[in-house]
Amino acid sequence: MSALTIRKATTADLPAIIAMLADDELGKSREDGSTPPNPAYVKAFAAIEADANQFMAVAEADGQVIGCLQLSFIPGLSRTGMWRGQIEGVRVASSHRSAGIGHKLLQWAIGECRRRGCGLVQLTTDKSRRDAKRFYEDLGFVAVHEGMKLTL
Amino acid sequence: MSALTIRKATTADLPAIIAMLADDELGKSREDGSTPPNPAYVKAFAAIEADANQFMAVAEADGQVIGCLQLSFIPGLSRTGMWRGQIEGVRVASSHRSAGIGHKLLQWAIGECRRRGCGLVQLTTDKSRRDAKRFYEDLGFVAVHEGMKLTL
Repeated sequence: MSALTIRKATTADLPAIIAMLADDELGKSREDGSTPPNPAYVKAFAAIEADANQFMAVAEADGQVIGCLQLSFIPGLSRTGMWRGQIEGVRVASSHRSAGIGHKLLQWAIGECRRRGCGLVQLTTDKSRRDAKRFYEDLGFVAVHEGMKLTL
Repeated sequence: MSALTIRKATTADLPAIIAMLADDELGKSREDGSTPPNPAYVKAFAAIEADANQFMAVAEADGQVIGCLQLSFIPGLSRTGMWRGQIEGVRVASSHRSAGIGHKLLQWAIGECRRRGCGLVQLTTDKSRRDAKRFYEDLGFVAVHEGMKLTL
């Protein structure tokens, strides 16, 4: 594999990103992998693009998109006005798993949060993803919180 | 107590909000309760105000600010382009606890997320806050995720 490039996603990356979101134990029932992309994805991507505090990142190797994550930069009053970096939707293409790509993607994301002046990086991971907790612990994350969700 | 009003916070509310953030088991070591407010809070409040996807809310009764929370509206590709509402920094003044104010504040926040088209409301709560998990469960939240943090 050639060097990994991590860059801002463009509309042209949407099919590859959606394919990765759908190629996942939990994602397969939640996502719509049809092409051209469901307009809901196109609209959501436009909303991410329009928000200076959102950053959709893709990892590319050999001209192929093989990983993604979304970064959110959240201003807040707590902890003496600290910014938080938040990571959502981490995926690595099934063809490229267990090759350290997720680790590199996360290290890049942590660096971006530091560069943007965040005092904390946070994420939640579904308790049913058995290996994910250890993956994030290896990167320095600590599971000090309960991650609670309410479906509307 | 007169009727509870929940509204957008203004700069004039900052001292009351900071006092509530500081009057908390975890917050007391993290916050700066000095007056006038530490400029870091003023700067953070300006960043919240400048971001259309952030909403700092206060609950008021008898002309006094007695509760607060921050709402973040997060666009995303996951779950077929679903928006998420996120809740941070929930506080009720110690003089007004156990009177259902937190519950009302959260119900209002959930309604706001629905009104803004979110498909999910999420929050994390420190595992050391023993009663918080049940409080959120009573509102319908489920602790399906680990909430992981990395301090920078």
